[in-house]
Amino acid sequence: MVVVMQERATDEQVQRVIAQLVEMGFDVHRSTGALRTVIGAVGGRQGDPALIEVLDGVKEVLRITEPYKLASRTFKPENTVVGIGDLRIGGDEVIVMAGPCSAETEEQVEATTAAVKRAGAKVLRGGAFKPRSSPYSFQGLGEEGLRLLRSAADRHNLKLVSEIMDLSQLDLMEKYADILQVGARNMQNFTLLRELGRCRTPVLLKRGISATIEEWLLSAEYILAGGNMNVMLCERGIRTFESYTRNTLDISAIPVVQKLSHLPILVDPSHGTGRRDKVTPMARAAVAAGADGLLIEVHSDPDHARSDGAQSLFPSQFDRLMAELRIIAPAIGRSICLEPVARRGWSR
Amino acid sequence: MVVVMQERATDEQVQRVIAQLVEMGFDVHRSTGALRTVIGAVGGRQGDPALIEVLDGVKEVLRITEPYKLASRTFKPENTVVGIGDLRIGGDEVIVMAGPCSAETEEQVEATTAAVKRAGAKVLRGGAFKPRSSPYSFQGLGEEGLRLLRSAADRHNLKLVSEIMDLSQLDLMEKYADILQVGARNMQNFTLLRELGRCRTPVLLKRGISATIEEWLLSAEYILAGGNMNVMLCERGIRTFESYTRNTLDISAIPVVQKLSHLPILVDPSHGTGRRDKVTPMARAAVAAGADGLLIEVHSDPDHARSDGAQSLFPSQFDRLMAELRIIAPAIGRSICLEPVARRGWSR
Amino acid sequence: MVVVMQERATDEQVQRVIAQLVEMGFDVHRSTGALRTVIGAVGGRQGDPALIEVLDGVKEVLRITEPYKLASRTFKPENTVVGIGDLRIGGDEVIVMAGPCSAETEEQVEATTAAVKRAGAKVLRGGAFKPRSSPYSFQGLGEEGLRLLRSAADRHNLKLVSEIMDLSQLDLMEKYADILQVGARNMQNFTLLRELGRCRTPVLLKRGISATIEEWLLSAEYILAGGNMNVMLCERGIRTFESYTRNTLDISAIPVVQKLSHLPILVDPSHGTGRRDKVTPMARAAVAAGADGLLIEVHSDPDHARSDGAQSLFPSQFDRLMAELRIIAPAIGRSICLEPVARRGWSR
Amino acid sequence: MVVVMQERATDEQVQRVIAQLVEMGFDVHRSTGALRTVIGAVGGRQGDPALIEVLDGVKEVLRITEPYKLASRTFKPENTVVGIGDLRIGGDEVIVMAGPCSAETEEQVEATTAAVKRAGAKVLRGGAFKPRSSPYSFQGLGEEGLRLLRSAADRHNLKLVSEIMDLSQLDLMEKYADILQVGARNMQNFTLLRELGRCRTPVLLKRGISATIEEWLLSAEYILAGGNMNVMLCERGIRTFESYTRNTLDISAIPVVQKLSHLPILVDPSHGTGRRDKVTPMARAAVAAGADGLLIEVHSDPDHARSDGAQSLFPSQFDRLMAELRIIAPAIGRSICLEPVARRGWSR
Repeated sequence: MVVVMQERATDEQVQRVIAQLVEMGFDVHRSTGALRTVIGAVGGRQGDPALIEVLDGVKEVLRITEPYKLASRTFKPENTVVGIGDLRIGGDEVIVMAGPCSAETEEQVEATTAAVKRAGAKVLRGGAFKPRSSPYSFQGLGEEGLRLLRSAADRHNLKLVSEIMDLSQLDLMEKYADILQVGARNMQNFTLLRELGRCRTPVLLKRGISATIEEWLLSAEYILAGGNMNVMLCERGIRTFESYTRNTLDISAIPVVQKLSHLPILVDPSHGTGRRDKVTPMARAAVAAGADGLLIEVHSDPDHARSDGAQSLFPSQFDRLMAELRIIAPAIGRSICLEPVARRGWSR
Repeated sequence: MVVVMQERATDEQVQRVIAQLVEMGFDVHRSTGALRTVIGAVGGRQGDPALIEVLDGVKEVLRITEPYKLASRTFKPENTVVGIGDLRIGGDEVIVMAGPCSAETEEQVEATTAAVKRAGAKVLRGGAFKPRSSPYSFQGLGEEGLRLLRSAADRHNLKLVSEIMDLSQLDLMEKYADILQVGARNMQNFTLLRELGRCRTPVLLKRGISATIEEWLLSAEYILAGGNMNVMLCERGIRTFESYTRNTLDISAIPVVQKLSHLPILVDPSHGTGRRDKVTPMARAAVAAGADGLLIEVHSDPDHARSDGAQSLFPSQFDRLMAELRIIAPAIGRSICLEPVARRGWSR
Repeated sequence: MVVVMQERATDEQVQRVIAQLVEMGFDVHRSTGALRTVIGAVGGRQGDPALIEVLDGVKEVLRITEPYKLASRTFKPENTVVGIGDLRIGGDEVIVMAGPCSAETEEQVEATTAAVKRAGAKVLRGGAFKPRSSPYSFQGLGEEGLRLLRSAADRHNLKLVSEIMDLSQLDLMEKYADILQVGARNMQNFTLLRELGRCRTPVLLKRGISATIEEWLLSAEYILAGGNMNVMLCERGIRTFESYTRNTLDISAIPVVQKLSHLPILVDPSHGTGRRDKVTPMARAAVAAGADGLLIEVHSDPDHARSDGAQSLFPSQFDRLMAELRIIAPAIGRSICLEPVARRGWSR
Repeated sequence: MVVVMQERATDEQVQRVIAQLVEMGFDVHRSTGALRTVIGAVGGRQGDPALIEVLDGVKEVLRITEPYKLASRTFKPENTVVGIGDLRIGGDEVIVMAGPCSAETEEQVEATTAAVKRAGAKVLRGGAFKPRSSPYSFQGLGEEGLRLLRSAADRHNLKLVSEIMDLSQLDLMEKYADILQVGARNMQNFTLLRELGRCRTPVLLKRGISATIEEWLLSAEYILAGGNMNVMLCERGIRTFESYTRNTLDISAIPVVQKLSHLPILVDPSHGTGRRDKVTPMARAAVAAGADGLLIEVHSDPDHARSDGAQSLFPSQFDRLMAELRIIAPAIGRSICLEPVARRGWSR
């Protein structure tokens, strides 16, 4: 950390700061200029930098290391590629995860799964436990939903990602899902994160609705620190003053995260916009900006969805989107689902 | 809900909207003006208003009822007063809860508790389980911390408020604390909220760092809906673009909440500002604006606190603040700790 | 407007609201349900809806018309295409405007202009009057800068866009520039906007750093209302809590504006991110999302630029970006600079 | 500035940074630790720190001096007190400026002025030129409005503050007003600010709706740098995600500004909240937090105001507020209008 003293700081005040830094375990380097003294402090890890900031004569304390380690590119320069069976997330191929907001019925799950597979998705997404702002909204089918999703994924040879809402659901979720999704509202549920660090199932960590990128990477650090290295990040919109869209999808988080961290970064344009007609342009934008994958809500009959229908694509809209993405991906040297089924399936 | 059609909407589009509303269980009232049609819909509760918004020809859907019920003043016009033994929160007296961020040692807890009691606090605050952004920060003493806090509270005849971080801590927390605090990061931990609705211990629900007031009241609704009516709200700063303060303490939330809801509203200027020298002016502002209480971090030796030292008041600063608050409270027809001990204690 | 009364509103209160609405010139339609009364009001234009909101018994007032008219798609369903000579902005071709932040020297302007022309830009951008947060920063060359830019644009057969900072510069600016840029800080300089409405030179109106899309369209309305229909909008980043990027480029504003308005929408990824390495991915994202054009800072020697060097692309980076955009544009049925010079020019 | 190199930065990269810093006129101090190199740079003023940030191997550039000088407490430790005749703003007395949003008629101006004087205001506030988001809203009476306000102020022995919207109004405004108000939307109208620096009339500089405190002080610097030292700041609400209030009044800006700057800081709770019933609690909060003054909209007949009626207090509400403030001010060692007229006038 670098401690900048006020111009009028006395030598006594400088000494007091140095004493405190030494007590906190830092090696201290004092540098006195014409106008002010600047103190460099390296190596310590005890206590709280803010404690220095409130000392008399201190103007500012500047941190010079990120608070996260395992999540940073400094620690691991090459990209992390998360492997699940033969699927690779974070490599050259842009991976699309698609499916309904919630599992509702066997027919709905089957119809939607068939549609997203045909269009080129590699992972089925679908919720069984739904975090809802209101206690009066539909809360998901629970284990029955997981069973429906797993069975459809297996039939269509897809992986399955589903959201875990609480520690108590961990055993159940691991039984059914290939990827455990941590929702935006749980991004700082540290009890849950710590436990996910102890398992080895891949985790998709959504960004909290007002989380800074640093806080997000710190939450990833909780999981990595436990030994689970299979962490993927997912941008899903941040809260701003603008209210035409439900959230503001922060596309610039893609290049920022790619510079700071080695973890794969995906984007969820469905929650990021909240409106079907905005999902397609934002999905295209995410891939053009370099995202490693997408999370997209598709529903076989969105008008009768029990949750998030307004932001779910019709299967035909999803087909068209995948076709557009296949044109865009090569612009940044990437591919997107070129397998036989898809090549036969999506064409007009 | 009120559905505003576009100016050029066709009659077919209007009929499609009406059909969907009827299917969703609404009574529908159509009103066609020179320029556009407006459709009023009352009574339904099925499905999602956003589903209407994406229909062709719809310009906007306006909600006309708050999504929360039990938390609203419409439901209960008179103020809720939460009683804990002889303590009343939400009545004429402004209640101050004070103490250390975390319990660290017996000496620290005792010295701080004695100091806040002497100055006029009615409730001891202190953490045993700490939610920390970084996995490498001090995480609290756990049950040992609770034991220290309870014993100090009892010795000084104070109530105790402490934070519950996860469902799994509920039994333990109820054994020691009089008030269960739900932190900002858990404001939408719905699994936890639902469980707190099943118990009867009073809950202090902090506002999420970027939660709208509506979302906050919806989270309170989760607890109320379970039958636990002893809910208090606590404003603790929202995230804005300004970075001089850690958060922007939203003082205007006080009159807004008092208009929308009957629940007591407290303010935490310590987390709201993050800096000791800002705590005192903001605490004064909160009381002047009409807050029902304050949550303030005080530490017998802030320079050596293991967490949040930079925002903890010295006991002498807390004394002075309480003296200032005793002048301000009468301006809005309220009192603040006029008991013998305090009257003797704080002046020197 | 729709006035929603409180559940407990008395008939007297309802009558008071109706009387006020009638006084304001509205046709009133009362609709009383089991729980509450809702009052529809159409046609009036006098006074302030907020005046109704403060009346006793009123719960909420909902607006049902946008406050802007000429800027809305309701008023003009087909896209506006701004023509400048043979250039068309808002049509099938994505238009790129590129050049230095400020004109500095004849050599710098010439070298940069030649480079952007070669790569496929159709408009030269460059500042002569610079709005700077600090009074101690470089403020631009003034008329001398305009002269340099005009002469380079003419030599390379490009149009010129440059920023007008104050009413008093209007005559001068019209003499040199083809498009007058209104900067983010002046988006609500109503005196200036009104005057721009009186001239016929095309205007590029940047979004204020914290302007809602509605406020932005209202500012466009000031210009349109004066009779100048040649208005283009330019998204350039909004202020959010995230601080890794200077601003958060709101890519979702593109589809939102295209739904609400007929005006062309461009994107400035240079100011939107503030960092060279973020400009390219965000420019790609903007085109993929459907932007009608881009505004990009390029400098022949960014390391020695007198302003904004850190966000200016090197000519070679701009070449590569244009090549990538040529792959992306067709995905949404658009072209981007396919003229001979470019086709010869940009290739490695 | 302090340049933090990446852990893996090569010596060549470090040398490149040093060379650039030297070229920019800095004295450079290199300090190489076990993990990384940190370079201190002092004294230079040429070019842009962001230019260093984009160099290879650089992790972060930290600024160690504020970009403003004359506005800072480092430059002038003692409070600035702005004197206008016998009025002192920034001293022990809290100064209240009150009056209508706009001058509308002679009767309205006279009735309102009499009311605010009687209650204890020292300055009449009122607009003649109104910045309105919509071109279709009432835009003010112009010079006729100024005449009405000046004449009422003189009759009641009050000073007058009124808003200047454009450079071209300067002569006119100086003829009538004692204090020139710069509105939030003009906070970065640098052409206007520079000109205000050349005159000597006191300026009340409102904070832009999304301006950081640093940008606000930089705008003050524009005026101070021209030689006009009579600058007062006025907080009036910032834009956040919360939409129950029009803006979020940033009460914490009061202690922050008082630490960073010597300039007086006032608060406008009328624009800060936009709703009459929130003005009173927020005005009390501002004084309790230490504001040097208040700007409050009062109207003799708010229901028929041509602008901002919904946020204007009735005279009787203003009376009550002043009475409450007289109780609060002493808590922080200040007074508020104790003159004979007021003492007789407000209590009934």
